[in-house]
Amino acid sequence: MKSDKKSDYIRLLKSKFFPFIEFGSEPLDWDTINLKVRQLGSNNAILSKSLKLIISNTGSVTRALEIISNRKINVKTIFQEIGVLQEEDKKLLKYLRLKPGDQLNFREVWLTDLENNYVFAFSLTPIKLLNNGFKEDLIKADIPIGRLIEKHKIECRKEIVKISAIEHHLLNHIGIKWDNIAESALIPYRIYNIIYKEQILMVIIEFFNPLLI
Amino acid sequence: MKSDKKSDYIRLLKSKFFPFIEFGSEPLDWDTINLKVRQLGSNNAILSKSLKLIISNTGSVTRALEIISNRKINVKTIFQEIGVLQEEDKKLLKYLRLKPGDQLNFREVWLTDLENNYVFAFSLTPIKLLNNGFKEDLIKADIPIGRLIEKHKIECRKEIVKISAIEHHLLNHIGIKWDNIAESALIPYRIYNIIYKEQILMVIIEFFNPLLI
Repeated sequence: MKSDKKSDYIRLLKSKFFPFIEFGSEPLDWDTINLKVRQLGSNNAILSKSLKLIISNTGSVTRALEIISNRKINVKTIFQEIGVLQEEDKKLLKYLRLKPGDQLNFREVWLTDLENNYVFAFSLTPIKLLNNGFKEDLIKADIPIGRLIEKHKIECRKEIVKISAIEHHLLNHIGIKWDNIAESALIPYRIYNIIYKEQILMVIIEFFNPLLI
Repeated sequence: MKSDKKSDYIRLLKSKFFPFIEFGSEPLDWDTINLKVRQLGSNNAILSKSLKLIISNTGSVTRALEIISNRKINVKTIFQEIGVLQEEDKKLLKYLRLKPGDQLNFREVWLTDLENNYVFAFSLTPIKLLNNGFKEDLIKADIPIGRLIEKHKIECRKEIVKISAIEHHLLNHIGIKWDNIAESALIPYRIYNIIYKEQILMVIIEFFNPLLI
């Protein structure tokens, strides 16, 4: 991708996803996570027991999908590029405690068994926190985050900052469309941070197919 | 508990639980975990989708139980004492990389909603790795490990070392007995280590009630 096209695309990505990210919001505490899941389940969103378990828990989503589908789950990368943060990216700089000129990896993927798309995930990763091995694997882009963390024996914690749902048709502009799901159906999603050495190693947004999980 | 009674009890605990812990065994890798869960499910053990998700994943078990039961899950402590490791505890010393004289916390609990006992958990925790706040909370003994890790913002990783099942009646001598489960039924269990600063912070064995989860 040419450099100017690339920065256009990253600008587009930011405009697509930033409405979902509430910069500066506190992580949800234990009881609030339970409450949010209960609210979501009673709020017209279809939420199976499996999806409740996955959305509220901090283990690997890929692993969970492999267990319930009994298939291998692959990462299908839609977009993956490293962008340079600008002076104007004030909220992002503050949230991620970065400086203008610092690099950020943008990644958009489907978690899929190559037949069904289970989860659409978007991640932001400050490059300077990564060691070389992890960085190389991340940029190869075909490895699920959970496997990366396991492979590199990363000690970290995950903090969930949002659990919610949004109407399917409002996600078309992000590139999320499931043929068998009604336009008006609610799509559950969550945002969480992976914290490593007390800094945000990744921000991840995941949109879940409520008919498959 | 008097000091000699205490050491008797700890000796008893060790003899009860050590057959389950395979000291020095390697953590299960990604694909082996999936395989073990699949084998368990096809091997006469009753394994619901929820239990498959919980046993294969490394998020908080307490949280998962709260989500599926829609109730608050409490820790009911059966036993909790700090013991001193002896010269003779060779395997334990090696596995936990400790020295004779080092202290180890022994804890046996039920995870329960006060009506149903979902999980029986046994944990070993080397004391010298804990900071004071975490130690105090652990010894208070009524807080689930997952909540402790969240509260103290512990960055760690979990490695599963065993996923298996055992006949119900063989657990009577450990104190595990569910009235509504047949003596011959298989009880799924797993063993995992919580790794913190590249050392074992805890070894946990969990036995799951397959009719409730």
